[in-house]
Amino acid sequence: MSKSLVSSPVIKRLPRYYRFLGELERQGIVRISSRELSEMMGLTASQIRQDLNCFGGFGQQGYGYNVKELHSVISRILGIDAGNKTILIGAGNLGKAIASHIDFNKRGFRLIGIFDSNPEKCGKIISNLKISNMNTIESFCRSNHPVCAVLCIPKDAAKEIAPKLIELGIKGFWNFSHYDFAVDSGKKIIVENVHLTDSLMTLAYGLNNTDEEEN
Amino acid sequence: MSKSLVSSPVIKRLPRYYRFLGELERQGIVRISSRELSEMMGLTASQIRQDLNCFGGFGQQGYGYNVKELHSVISRILGIDAGNKTILIGAGNLGKAIASHIDFNKRGFRLIGIFDSNPEKCGKIISNLKISNMNTIESFCRSNHPVCAVLCIPKDAAKEIAPKLIELGIKGFWNFSHYDFAVDSGKKIIVENVHLTDSLMTLAYGLNNTDEEEN
Repeated sequence: MSKSLVSSPVIKRLPRYYRFLGELERQGIVRISSRELSEMMGLTASQIRQDLNCFGGFGQQGYGYNVKELHSVISRILGIDAGNKTILIGAGNLGKAIASHIDFNKRGFRLIGIFDSNPEKCGKIISNLKISNMNTIESFCRSNHPVCAVLCIPKDAAKEIAPKLIELGIKGFWNFSHYDFAVDSGKKIIVENVHLTDSLMTLAYGLNNTDEEEN
Repeated sequence: MSKSLVSSPVIKRLPRYYRFLGELERQGIVRISSRELSEMMGLTASQIRQDLNCFGGFGQQGYGYNVKELHSVISRILGIDAGNKTILIGAGNLGKAIASHIDFNKRGFRLIGIFDSNPEKCGKIISNLKISNMNTIESFCRSNHPVCAVLCIPKDAAKEIAPKLIELGIKGFWNFSHYDFAVDSGKKIIVENVHLTDSLMTLAYGLNNTDEEEN
């Protein structure tokens, strides 16, 4: 079975399936039809059938999907229990919020280190982890082998540290900086960008361009 | 000129153009060819020409784009100076980080109020604003007419407050909750979702599925 045949839009929808099925499971619902799931999620039933077929056909005609089974299959596909060792870089407002707000353990990750270049922040505790000085990151990586890094630092700092981290074995980046990995292409790494201000500006565009009426 | 003909992927790329052009302008660069811009941004030159043509042809054959002019046109299209009055709901870790980390003024917004349902948080100051009690939100909206809300609250709280906010005149949502506006469709509002944990799970999928080698 070639997993790589799954298209990127389907992959992007998987976490959403995972969320909805988790809620159904918590509500004690045992099975659900593609039609019911489609109404909940605002997708078409045929879209849902197509998406889930990519991972093998779990649905049965006239029965629907077994909620618990489908939830657990998607959890396995996403790697929710993988516990990928992760470091977070940049303990400013955003980094601190990400470290304390996000439950990494439930999403396939394990946060094992937090780093900042400001010595005054070092030693402080966030989310049960002591903030370490950036100049210890190399020895930390060599001893602890993290595979993922969360970048909560400005673009220039990200540009400087990213190649070093790749050399140290980091394979995945959760990138909150404006550093553009796409530009330095050719490396086999996985990047998920969260460009908050781009999202905010898209909202600004929407607010300014849908309604042409004058107030 | 009908702005609504601009497709959603082009709109999603506009903030990125805005960022790159802003950097070029700060570096004192006066003009740039679509080829140079494409190399910087990791897009094709023809993609860039197509995108920017949607807003009227600013490029001149053999000259390229005037950086300052293009930056300012895109700024106008995005509504960067619109100062849309905005409230933030939920002053937990994430809400506090968003309020202090994001420069709303430079992105088309003006943060005018922060609300939380926890009375112990009320009165505290974030980003020069006093946190107000959620039970004052209705009178606040009636007096101050915000048009945008940032939701940094759990799904159930968002589900409860969203329809009320729409009634009170909110037209745009920057939605960090897992509440799904798509499901309660039919209302003419603009929503930008930032589903952080979905993004993180997509990264988990990538880490677990691209490299089939055993370590």
